[in-house]
Amino acid sequence: MQITYPSSQKTYIKGTLHDIRVGMRQISLLDTVCVENGVETREPNAPVIVYDTSGPYSDGDIDIRRGLPRLRESWIEARGDTEKQPAFSSACADRQLCNKDREADRFPVVHLPRKAGKGKLCTQMYYAQQGIVTAEMEYAAIRENMQNGTLGIASHVTPEFVRDEVAAGRAVIPANINHPEAEPMIIGTNFLVKINTNIGNSALSSGIGEEVEKAVRSCQWGGDTLMDLSTGDHIHETREWIIRNTPVPTGTVPVYQALEKVNGRIADLSWEIYRDTLVEQCEQGVDYFTIHAGLLRAHLPLVQRRTTGIVSRGGSIIAGWMTRRNEENFFYTRFEEICDLLKQYDVAVSLGDGLRPGSIGDANDAAQFAELSVLGELTRTAWKHRVQVLIEGPGHVPMHRIKANMDEQVKHCHGAPFYTLGPLTTDIAPGYDHITSAIGAAQIAWYGTAMICYVTPKEHLGLPDREDVRAGVIAYKIAAHAADLAKEYPGAEVRDRALSKARFDFRWRDQFNLSLDPEKALEYYRAGRTGDDSDHCTMCGPHFCAMKLTRDIRQKQECIL
Amino acid sequence: MQITYPSSQKTYIKGTLHDIRVGMRQISLLDTVCVENGVETREPNAPVIVYDTSGPYSDGDIDIRRGLPRLRESWIEARGDTEKQPAFSSACADRQLCNKDREADRFPVVHLPRKAGKGKLCTQMYYAQQGIVTAEMEYAAIRENMQNGTLGIASHVTPEFVRDEVAAGRAVIPANINHPEAEPMIIGTNFLVKINTNIGNSALSSGIGEEVEKAVRSCQWGGDTLMDLSTGDHIHETREWIIRNTPVPTGTVPVYQALEKVNGRIADLSWEIYRDTLVEQCEQGVDYFTIHAGLLRAHLPLVQRRTTGIVSRGGSIIAGWMTRRNEENFFYTRFEEICDLLKQYDVAVSLGDGLRPGSIGDANDAAQFAELSVLGELTRTAWKHRVQVLIEGPGHVPMHRIKANMDEQVKHCHGAPFYTLGPLTTDIAPGYDHITSAIGAAQIAWYGTAMICYVTPKEHLGLPDREDVRAGVIAYKIAAHAADLAKEYPGAEVRDRALSKARFDFRWRDQFNLSLDPEKALEYYRAGRTGDDSDHCTMCGPHFCAMKLTRDIRQKQECIL
Repeated sequence: MQITYPSSQKTYIKGTLHDIRVGMRQISLLDTVCVENGVETREPNAPVIVYDTSGPYSDGDIDIRRGLPRLRESWIEARGDTEKQPAFSSACADRQLCNKDREADRFPVVHLPRKAGKGKLCTQMYYAQQGIVTAEMEYAAIRENMQNGTLGIASHVTPEFVRDEVAAGRAVIPANINHPEAEPMIIGTNFLVKINTNIGNSALSSGIGEEVEKAVRSCQWGGDTLMDLSTGDHIHETREWIIRNTPVPTGTVPVYQALEKVNGRIADLSWEIYRDTLVEQCEQGVDYFTIHAGLLRAHLPLVQRRTTGIVSRGGSIIAGWMTRRNEENFFYTRFEEICDLLKQYDVAVSLGDGLRPGSIGDANDAAQFAELSVLGELTRTAWKHRVQVLIEGPGHVPMHRIKANMDEQVKHCHGAPFYTLGPLTTDIAPGYDHITSAIGAAQIAWYGTAMICYVTPKEHLGLPDREDVRAGVIAYKIAAHAADLAKEYPGAEVRDRALSKARFDFRWRDQFNLSLDPEKALEYYRAGRTGDDSDHCTMCGPHFCAMKLTRDIRQKQECIL
Repeated sequence: MQITYPSSQKTYIKGTLHDIRVGMRQISLLDTVCVENGVETREPNAPVIVYDTSGPYSDGDIDIRRGLPRLRESWIEARGDTEKQPAFSSACADRQLCNKDREADRFPVVHLPRKAGKGKLCTQMYYAQQGIVTAEMEYAAIRENMQNGTLGIASHVTPEFVRDEVAAGRAVIPANINHPEAEPMIIGTNFLVKINTNIGNSALSSGIGEEVEKAVRSCQWGGDTLMDLSTGDHIHETREWIIRNTPVPTGTVPVYQALEKVNGRIADLSWEIYRDTLVEQCEQGVDYFTIHAGLLRAHLPLVQRRTTGIVSRGGSIIAGWMTRRNEENFFYTRFEEICDLLKQYDVAVSLGDGLRPGSIGDANDAAQFAELSVLGELTRTAWKHRVQVLIEGPGHVPMHRIKANMDEQVKHCHGAPFYTLGPLTTDIAPGYDHITSAIGAAQIAWYGTAMICYVTPKEHLGLPDREDVRAGVIAYKIAAHAADLAKEYPGAEVRDRALSKARFDFRWRDQFNLSLDPEKALEYYRAGRTGDDSDHCTMCGPHFCAMKLTRDIRQKQECIL
């Protein structure tokens, strides 16, 4: 499998602290050509460097049966604080490996897991608090500077700044030591806004090959992280194929698999089964877990009068468990044990919002904010263990209530990065929820949300196929970039300026190559094209082209002004 | 041609002041069915009434060769202040009617034009200032209340409130006396946010039939007004077919046709040719004209250093004219004469922003705001003539600069309704500019913009086809509705609540029927459907459906709480 971008070259910047090289995409541009009084002049346009999430797929053809190169393996080994294990330790992983029925589905290469040595800590947060700038931190710092269009570190984002933000919990580098294939990246309000893509099959749907394809295409279009939300058959195998083949951090909601292990019988869920699932996924290389630990029994009465009750799958599972068992949420009561486990692999916890509003009418209600304040408490607990934390957020929220979500999160969660689903700003457009939610996502990201989780056109209607993933990723790249511009992130406007200059110059190819989806732009352009349009645009035709007229005016004005 | 909506009935509300009936769409819903302990209970769901822009197309099949019924003709006649003319008075219209070459393209029915009687005024603003509540005002008032889900006038929007807003210039009812087919509607910050659709062929593109089809589909999907931006052949005939067949106010940019009359030679444009074009279009029934009267010679030097110069077509034409002729903008110098003409037909003026920014880098610059302050001056002039005024706005603006646009408009333009194109919040997504701009449009509408002009996915790349019109209209209906919700417009949330309740009840058909695009929702749903899903959703499958789990929990909780 391979990713190619038009007129683009993969280039690398070397680290100065560590022996690392950070890949990025350099887009070459044509000259600006002016013809005045019959004389042609040419002015070169500098190439534009953009953030690159495509990993090794843009270096050459990847054999997905072998998986990606293990970029971080040597860094992790060199730190000497982790140990390779002689075998997988979860009961489930063992069964998976021995189950001959699934031979055909199995990823062909086995990598034994690694975990922290006895008495050692191996999380990025721990290192940062020790004053250490890891290779991961330097890598992430270099990437954040690429939108400057300049090579090397030029803005406020230095490796030391990355370290300080991670130390303070204001930013997260999801980096399970068992997912060395992933390129380090950083999620935090003081960095470029990131987007997450959800994929995964259900009992009703697609196969492993299709999921790997979606994962790779998400990286092609710019997805920064990926969640595998599979709930159907072969969860373990699907995830293995995805993790071994994705160059971005990968998350899951482990309770989905735990529930599969008890055949969907919620009351049969137990800490032991859940814990074993966490171990299985820690060893496999999942970089962050969504855990709905903030939804307590005391919150359930608050949900009774809602229009749409609980719409989070994980939230409804644990609510069902509490109701059936008449016990407190075990994600909450066992949270210290969970952290104890996660820190041995540097898995980040993404504190799920099980009570996120599923409709405009339920936004910002008592249930939602009660849970959010528990998430703040859990943040402190996780940090005590040096476990990195993300806070998940809504959901469906009308525009005038979005800011309050950000404010409440800041108030309760001590600066941990906010990671929101949308929010969707109206309920009335199923089939177009990538748009209802991009409107909200752009705003909440501007207000400070660090990562926005995409929504596809099929939200509420079905699982996304490849084209839906594309529509969702591009809509969210737009929202994230709009927020970067609004936050005046240094260098964010370089790509806009270059593209607009290309547009004004009628350098059509450059305009497309600089765009978020060159293929789509070219397709639309070709549909409207009827002849030579090197000096006018395809919308207005040759007599009416505003940009052509402006150029003419500029030439004329030099005489009269 | 016909428009049908699923499970919907056209219903009418009668006026109390005038003998009028206002069409709207009533969506019937299924019962909510609960089965508890084997006992089935049913609870009816009230039908939802929604604003309807489909006009007579949802009453039955319309023969577009005859045109729509002339709804307002008797109202206009009854006022006795206008006179039917014995013939068309523009030179161009005469030539059109006599030109045998175009016989095949000609609309088959001729309606002679009407204009104000000598010494009479016939604009809605004039009537309002006299304290008169016209049929148009009552009609618009009734429509604004429909989203309440209640029949009849229930909220703050009374016919008298409409009158007062029109009298103050804070709202516009575009209602040329020669377009009696259009159903009255109101544009103003204190009313539901409206959306405008642009259609029209260019020298490069489509035929008359296709344009009429786009116009009708725009009304089906919810477009409130329509602009015919044709620049190619048969401008007059294309417009005639559109106006005679659209139930919504229709606008144009008259300079496009004026320029066609001088074969695209900008320097040959003259007041006489332009004025004759205005007369031609006033007589034909155009409801509002975009006129770029605020772009002055003094502004041209401000454009020199812009990334994308002038991107407004009308703006670049008049800038070119000023440059070539070394004269002041004649739209500005002749503005009183223009108003004198427009008021005889009640054509509203939409003051064009010829210097709207065409890229993020040019947003909110001196050029843009210099023109805006001239638009404020022209607003006063138009109002003196009782001509209704809209103010056009940008363009490309990053999110953090959007609010300043609204503030400047309020500061300079005395409360006249703001009508913006987007704004697009980033330049880097050609092919997806319906999304880059819906993000900005939702925000500026929330801040008070009265009408947002749609942008289609083909913006910057080509002219929109039918599917692009659909994508643009729905994206803008989303933005407008998100703004209505954020403004807490009374009753705006009724449709969201009804749809979300249908979603929670697994009343799939109701969910689709209540949505902005039932056909698309159904198409996506069917693509993901594999069996019986009457009690779970198509995304999660039967074991994992959050909404099913919540319902189960509610039933259980009644015992334990």
